[in-house]
Amino acid sequence: MKSRAMVLEAFNQPLVMREFDIQPLAEGELLVKIEAAGVCGSDVHMQKGEDPRTPLPIILGHEGVGRIVAMNGARKTVNGETLAEGDLILWTRGMACNHCYACAVLLEPWLCQDRKTYGINRTSSQPPYLNGCYSEYVTLLNSVDIYKAAADIDPAVLVSASCSGATIAHAFDHHAPKLGDTVLVQGPGPLGLYAIMYAKKLGASRVIVIGGSGNRLEICRDFGADVILNRNTTSVEERRQAILDLTYGRGVDMAIEAVGHPSAVQEGLKLVRSGGAYLSVGFSQPPGECQVDFFKEVVSKNLKIQGVWVSSNRHTQHALSMVQSQPELFAKMITHRFPLAEANAALQSMAQRDALKAVLIP
Amino acid sequence: MKSRAMVLEAFNQPLVMREFDIQPLAEGELLVKIEAAGVCGSDVHMQKGEDPRTPLPIILGHEGVGRIVAMNGARKTVNGETLAEGDLILWTRGMACNHCYACAVLLEPWLCQDRKTYGINRTSSQPPYLNGCYSEYVTLLNSVDIYKAAADIDPAVLVSASCSGATIAHAFDHHAPKLGDTVLVQGPGPLGLYAIMYAKKLGASRVIVIGGSGNRLEICRDFGADVILNRNTTSVEERRQAILDLTYGRGVDMAIEAVGHPSAVQEGLKLVRSGGAYLSVGFSQPPGECQVDFFKEVVSKNLKIQGVWVSSNRHTQHALSMVQSQPELFAKMITHRFPLAEANAALQSMAQRDALKAVLIP
Amino acid sequence: MKSRAMVLEAFNQPLVMREFDIQPLAEGELLVKIEAAGVCGSDVHMQKGEDPRTPLPIILGHEGVGRIVAMNGARKTVNGETLAEGDLILWTRGMACNHCYACAVLLEPWLCQDRKTYGINRTSSQPPYLNGCYSEYVTLLNSVDIYKAAADIDPAVLVSASCSGATIAHAFDHHAPKLGDTVLVQGPGPLGLYAIMYAKKLGASRVIVIGGSGNRLEICRDFGADVILNRNTTSVEERRQAILDLTYGRGVDMAIEAVGHPSAVQEGLKLVRSGGAYLSVGFSQPPGECQVDFFKEVVSKNLKIQGVWVSSNRHTQHALSMVQSQPELFAKMITHRFPLAEANAALQSMAQRDALKAVLIP
Amino acid sequence: MKSRAMVLEAFNQPLVMREFDIQPLAEGELLVKIEAAGVCGSDVHMQKGEDPRTPLPIILGHEGVGRIVAMNGARKTVNGETLAEGDLILWTRGMACNHCYACAVLLEPWLCQDRKTYGINRTSSQPPYLNGCYSEYVTLLNSVDIYKAAADIDPAVLVSASCSGATIAHAFDHHAPKLGDTVLVQGPGPLGLYAIMYAKKLGASRVIVIGGSGNRLEICRDFGADVILNRNTTSVEERRQAILDLTYGRGVDMAIEAVGHPSAVQEGLKLVRSGGAYLSVGFSQPPGECQVDFFKEVVSKNLKIQGVWVSSNRHTQHALSMVQSQPELFAKMITHRFPLAEANAALQSMAQRDALKAVLIP
Repeated sequence: MKSRAMVLEAFNQPLVMREFDIQPLAEGELLVKIEAAGVCGSDVHMQKGEDPRTPLPIILGHEGVGRIVAMNGARKTVNGETLAEGDLILWTRGMACNHCYACAVLLEPWLCQDRKTYGINRTSSQPPYLNGCYSEYVTLLNSVDIYKAAADIDPAVLVSASCSGATIAHAFDHHAPKLGDTVLVQGPGPLGLYAIMYAKKLGASRVIVIGGSGNRLEICRDFGADVILNRNTTSVEERRQAILDLTYGRGVDMAIEAVGHPSAVQEGLKLVRSGGAYLSVGFSQPPGECQVDFFKEVVSKNLKIQGVWVSSNRHTQHALSMVQSQPELFAKMITHRFPLAEANAALQSMAQRDALKAVLIP
Repeated sequence: MKSRAMVLEAFNQPLVMREFDIQPLAEGELLVKIEAAGVCGSDVHMQKGEDPRTPLPIILGHEGVGRIVAMNGARKTVNGETLAEGDLILWTRGMACNHCYACAVLLEPWLCQDRKTYGINRTSSQPPYLNGCYSEYVTLLNSVDIYKAAADIDPAVLVSASCSGATIAHAFDHHAPKLGDTVLVQGPGPLGLYAIMYAKKLGASRVIVIGGSGNRLEICRDFGADVILNRNTTSVEERRQAILDLTYGRGVDMAIEAVGHPSAVQEGLKLVRSGGAYLSVGFSQPPGECQVDFFKEVVSKNLKIQGVWVSSNRHTQHALSMVQSQPELFAKMITHRFPLAEANAALQSMAQRDALKAVLIP
Repeated sequence: MKSRAMVLEAFNQPLVMREFDIQPLAEGELLVKIEAAGVCGSDVHMQKGEDPRTPLPIILGHEGVGRIVAMNGARKTVNGETLAEGDLILWTRGMACNHCYACAVLLEPWLCQDRKTYGINRTSSQPPYLNGCYSEYVTLLNSVDIYKAAADIDPAVLVSASCSGATIAHAFDHHAPKLGDTVLVQGPGPLGLYAIMYAKKLGASRVIVIGGSGNRLEICRDFGADVILNRNTTSVEERRQAILDLTYGRGVDMAIEAVGHPSAVQEGLKLVRSGGAYLSVGFSQPPGECQVDFFKEVVSKNLKIQGVWVSSNRHTQHALSMVQSQPELFAKMITHRFPLAEANAALQSMAQRDALKAVLIP
Repeated sequence: MKSRAMVLEAFNQPLVMREFDIQPLAEGELLVKIEAAGVCGSDVHMQKGEDPRTPLPIILGHEGVGRIVAMNGARKTVNGETLAEGDLILWTRGMACNHCYACAVLLEPWLCQDRKTYGINRTSSQPPYLNGCYSEYVTLLNSVDIYKAAADIDPAVLVSASCSGATIAHAFDHHAPKLGDTVLVQGPGPLGLYAIMYAKKLGASRVIVIGGSGNRLEICRDFGADVILNRNTTSVEERRQAILDLTYGRGVDMAIEAVGHPSAVQEGLKLVRSGGAYLSVGFSQPPGECQVDFFKEVVSKNLKIQGVWVSSNRHTQHALSMVQSQPELFAKMITHRFPLAEANAALQSMAQRDALKAVLIP
């Protein structure tokens, strides 16, 4: 039995379609038919060689939803359900080692230095080869943590739960709003949409979004944004004044940076009230330094800044729970669908920001 | 009855000795004979007009310990003890309004916008005039929160509890070490000494100090520092390597910045391990901007940065408890004592960093 | 100018209508025309003399919404808005002392031993006499914390925010659900309805309610309950099994006891999963002891039990924010309205559990 | 090569010495020569068949310290150090599954339902047989988490870190004192001694101990107890009054129950101040029910009760750090040492409470 997959063999070159022999399953392994594979903004950076974790050759794709087609021995989900062939499943894309200081002592597996992640740092040159989701099939190791998806859900809608959804779940795990709080979201991409939903689901009474793309800002309203501030039609000072006007002159209670650019940090810190929190989530690569006036923006405001890096099982579970509560809404995030062979076009749609979220349907 | 006090009447000018008529006490007010008044580094900035909160004229001095000489009606301490003439007391220097959003909803009175602080934003031109501690007497309003000091303690030893001690208590209230943690303290002044003590008292197994003054670094050892890194005899890279060597290559679990300079922040962020915390305490005025690589130092390290601004009753209580547990040790912090009339010399000893901590004995 | 009010002069006797001279306002005081006064279950206990805090004579009523009719000097809301005659307002019913150990050091004003509460421990025999809300007018002291209500809201809908709403806000302030959690609410009264709403607003994916009154259980569905277990038609064991079936055999993630009877605690503790939380809110008086198997239900389950007592400003703000986000829904809680003169009938409707929530409209 | 071990073959019967063939090591396994094995109070319960987790036959002993004598492949400690033959090591006695809801989602591995623990639920009838520490050798699986001990430390002093020390670390991980707090410890056994040390190390200013054995109470002073209340010479009411006198009439800020008897809970809850915390640690088996007045002791006091069950890697690390900071002190806990063949006498010394802590030296 064979599986076709789109492989990155050289940086800055198109992915190429390759065929792999499917290996016999070791004990506890699953063979999964990919039903939908998310195309993530970070895949674009990986193709360009900007992410130092990337080995070559690699089957990209760290956001997968699929159906079990073969098993070797009994397996259970994280919730203890017995798995069977035919089940539609989602999994935690990164496997922490469970035994290092971060995993075992800190209980913060997102900090594990030995985290192995499908489609990110596992090459297709080593068995079982099918180690990414831009593929017809993926082989899930014994140590992958698995969740059952609702049988009738559109798989494409779920893919982002395991990446941007889980990352935002991680952010709110560090700091949650209080009932009635005003939350600012910077950046209306997939991370930002999740941030809007999380803020509302966790009790914020008002979410303000700053972004530049009219289309995306409209979708933000569907996700629950109450106030939209368009970067292209307002000045920094106008936005600051608008936010003060909405918050008794205080600034927002918390902000989530989902942009990844120093200018966003520099604007955002000034918009949070004294004693508030600033969660920085959007940086997936080094874009230069931020200028921060520590006296004015951090110390005298008693501000908390929290960096947020990747996620863990815990967050996949939280995100999956949220997506499954409103699948029709999350369907709006999926603006583009491509067959597997058009993975390069899918990457381009993300690079050019035509797509809010592209999904491959192998 | 009269009280002499040292008054700042014009910025960048010496304080001048003035005599005030002591006013009749309103209900609940206390007249207190100052036994010791701390000279704080921020008093130097106030004299220069660098602190925008400063009204003129003002009796400086926000760190006072004194003895009750007159009362108008019954008063109790925060702990519910009845106060009497002759009691040696310490008080919380800032009076929060108790009714604004910060006080009443956030329960974070250190953020109160209407905080009135002895020796900082209360002029001597308004009744009851004796509103600072560089004075023979101070009048404590009904709303001042009071603690009894141990009857046999040297008052000079206690003064810093209400300022630098309380500020560090505030910092550790935001983030405490875990048993066995390694804590970095940047800056061996009074804030830094308190930070060393707090870290050790709260379970850290090792405290590393970075500083430049040999004398001060020696006192750090007395306060519990395990490792001293002298800024004048080591390079940034040597210090970084020394800290990695001490921490299994991880970096420190938490760091406290007690310097107030961008270079300290820039060095310190790089020395904290992934998932660790960086508490910034040392900035009492704007010294320019810090360059922070958010991707590298904040996001990919999942770092928490916490600004810490002033303090509250809660922290005065914590700091007082600590000082009273080891008064002989804290006596070492008090390197210089001056009579009231020599307040200008005392300020100079702080400005020139001759004194680690100067105290006026009126 | 006069105000009529319903006064409790002797325990177990009907309230009697009395007329009071309205006193001149001291500085900062407000005279407020009561638009709606909630009748609380605890008022019934107070009438019977079961609450040891009750002084006689007393104007009952600790849940008030009203309109400012006179002021002496400027006043602001907690949010800093300037108040004016004609404003519809809500206030925090209890005034903490702000200076005791609970208020100043713990920053937990709900534990203040000197808390003065309208309609609960302030007699009508002392000025300004109008110290409860079963009245045409109430006098709000300078130290009362005030919120503006939306101008167009039905005042009756808001009354419960300051009591049962704030109490539940307090409970969830101690422990909040995680996204996807299952929450159990025991007791479908006003506390229980707020608990349902809070659980859903703060991210729970499923709320289970246990109660005995069919009518009330139906309203629970409107407030967001997903699963209803009727105490009158199911056994303890059936309910336990139903909950295990819904939670992968684990039990609920957290439970809120809003009943006030030992049998509820004894059932509830068994329904929470290992590592979960049990919030006990419903006891307003001593109903006897609970039998708790500490080994089985507390220690080996690593359970957290949190008692919740009254509330504070912080919680009034949270509750008000929630009610104002869905006033039509909260209108369903108000099943009975009475004129002031029929306060005794209103109390009876609560005592007999005819009313879910009764409100006086003076 | 052979190893002798003391085996429990039938409940209520003496352990018997058996000889086992040492199996070849699988990849990643370690063969460890036991240098010291702690005899725990719960071993006594296991021998009597009172702990339902106990399989037969079993080599008891879950507290081991030993020296590596053989390895199959490279292994690292939790801190990333490379292990070598001859290293003195300690390990986390329980292996969590790392993949269930408790491990992967809650990140609370102490709640893992599939936790495998040396000397507690691993029979000696299955390979590799040497699954407990009352033995000359133990085989550590690949998934055991390991710490290096200081080369010069007395191994007997370390054994308790992995059991009672880790359990108390777990307790304080749920709730830590604030600087200046007063902490009550009920029960002067090994758990209690650790609780005293933890309270002091984490900032408590005063620790009060209640216990009945004069010898043990004396050792409590060495561990830092400030006030001793002897159960045999004081009444419940005298102890209550003594504690109120020490705490401004408030009660203690937190209490740790390390007794395991309902009477301790019933006394202890009354001794904690409003808003305080009660950590229940001492119950390792069902001793009957506690009578708790929820209104009076839990709800109206806004009390937090936290059950504490076993521990995890995180806590072993914390406890190890504490013991190694003061090994001479912890040596006082080890009152009895026995050779392996006298394990039955060692158990009896614990059962009769002759020994505070007995250790086998194989």
